[in-house]
Amino acid sequence: MALPSKVKIVEVGPRDGLQNEKQPVSTETKLAFIDQLADAGLAVIEATAFVSPKWVPQMADHAEVMRGLRRRAGVRYPVLVPNMQGYEAARAAGVDEIAIFGAASEAFSQKNINCSIADSLARFAPVVAAAQRDGVAVRAYVSCVLGCPYQGEVPLADVARVARALYEMGCYEVSLGDTIGVGTPVKAQRMVAAVADVVPVERLAAHFHDTWGQALANLYAVLEMGVASIDSSAAGLGGCPYAKGASGNVATEDVVYLLNGLGIETGVDLDKLAAAGRFINQQLGRAPASKAAAALAAGSNQEG
Amino acid sequence: MALPSKVKIVEVGPRDGLQNEKQPVSTETKLAFIDQLADAGLAVIEATAFVSPKWVPQMADHAEVMRGLRRRAGVRYPVLVPNMQGYEAARAAGVDEIAIFGAASEAFSQKNINCSIADSLARFAPVVAAAQRDGVAVRAYVSCVLGCPYQGEVPLADVARVARALYEMGCYEVSLGDTIGVGTPVKAQRMVAAVADVVPVERLAAHFHDTWGQALANLYAVLEMGVASIDSSAAGLGGCPYAKGASGNVATEDVVYLLNGLGIETGVDLDKLAAAGRFINQQLGRAPASKAAAALAAGSNQEG
Repeated sequence: MALPSKVKIVEVGPRDGLQNEKQPVSTETKLAFIDQLADAGLAVIEATAFVSPKWVPQMADHAEVMRGLRRRAGVRYPVLVPNMQGYEAARAAGVDEIAIFGAASEAFSQKNINCSIADSLARFAPVVAAAQRDGVAVRAYVSCVLGCPYQGEVPLADVARVARALYEMGCYEVSLGDTIGVGTPVKAQRMVAAVADVVPVERLAAHFHDTWGQALANLYAVLEMGVASIDSSAAGLGGCPYAKGASGNVATEDVVYLLNGLGIETGVDLDKLAAAGRFINQQLGRAPASKAAAALAAGSNQEG
Repeated sequence: MALPSKVKIVEVGPRDGLQNEKQPVSTETKLAFIDQLADAGLAVIEATAFVSPKWVPQMADHAEVMRGLRRRAGVRYPVLVPNMQGYEAARAAGVDEIAIFGAASEAFSQKNINCSIADSLARFAPVVAAAQRDGVAVRAYVSCVLGCPYQGEVPLADVARVARALYEMGCYEVSLGDTIGVGTPVKAQRMVAAVADVVPVERLAAHFHDTWGQALANLYAVLEMGVASIDSSAAGLGGCPYAKGASGNVATEDVVYLLNGLGIETGVDLDKLAAAGRFINQQLGRAPASKAAAALAAGSNQEG
């Protein structure tokens, strides 16, 4: 299969990234960061999560973030929503696109959201129904598609089953998360092949972590299969919640450099993106996790 | 084309890596590092360079390194040699395998070795002839195969021409170096395809740098073309000599994790390799550049 000519990047730094950073970030800084990301050409920016501040204090200012957004034409600002309560709060704050999240691993579902996979799907069904009634687009995440921190191996049949359930529930896209970054290219391809049997490949996204340094190789491997939607985090924000000191979300800068080199259109300006990454790194007092950003900052030669 | 079932890793940390580290390393430390690498299962370890101490003070102890090596059965210890003088010194020190180096970029050849590509090839011809007479195997490096820090783009025809000349001179393998790590997968494949037209693909090695974070993706792409020899540097030693703060050689740990995941045999034990990397990082007072090593040190989950 030919590589896609165009890839949609879903920027998850302001949510998935900042949610996992220890250092607190002001609402003002979040808004400036989101605005810089939009300015860099990112057309989908996950802005915040309407989750309980008790569990995720980093996202406690979700309503303020939504209120303060300088919305730009052509840019979407989805938010994470765990249940009906979160959905209603999100709607009250003016949200027009949401994301829900399930796990392919039973053990992860229990530990992470405190219920079985089946119960989590049942909990999301009314959220998706309400969103459809309201004309709100719903995206789904499936975590642990290439391995689980608690149960180890995750059967491909489980990944396919959960992805299919979320797709059939009405999610327009299913993002497949290698939550602990353990995957390698052929395994990533086999996983996508298993899911593509039950959900059209053009409805799949890759959400790969770089914990073992494999994310770009895995992304290249699934681009070869026609996946054309990629989740990434500017500056590699977020780290790995399951192993301190290890990498987490693949850095958007590295992904954009890859896609540029492959001649795949993203609409993203690498220099502006790297500037947004430097801004948030400075705010967090954090070293850059993106090799492309480090190369750019070092004045390294780019592709001829 | 199917992926190879087995890949030979050429460990270049003790030479290409340490040569580019600012912090000096004692001969004793080098020998301990090399021994740990051999213990980890690396069967080809580039041990040092017989170059002028005036230009490369880090390798001034080349004769002591060769003398002090605890040679193991089945492990080869090639050294870099720039000319006849270096070759003779290497032979006097008991070397039985050497590597020579050319550039695919005229500008790089001039700046790096102070002569044209044609002159450098003419200079290597007697070295290769002497080595053949002495039963010494010769490997060749070609630098700047995907871009040059001085001239930018490097025509594929130039890469193929230099690789062919070195192969026809009698080198048993030609290692294709993305010296500034600018390549991306499709460009890496096109480059290998151009060279494989004139040198059998089983005689090619990939020597990719991770400056822009692309090395593993590029390696995966050329594995798909049948390349089965990979150069890498434990702990990602070396950095990028052309951009301070940017990454250089791809880390052997990351490569081994990739190949393990692909089911490709390497003979390398990742835990022992990571221990060798930690040892040299401690000696250098240097942070690990390998994500796989960081994940391992953080106790992150591995593949199920």
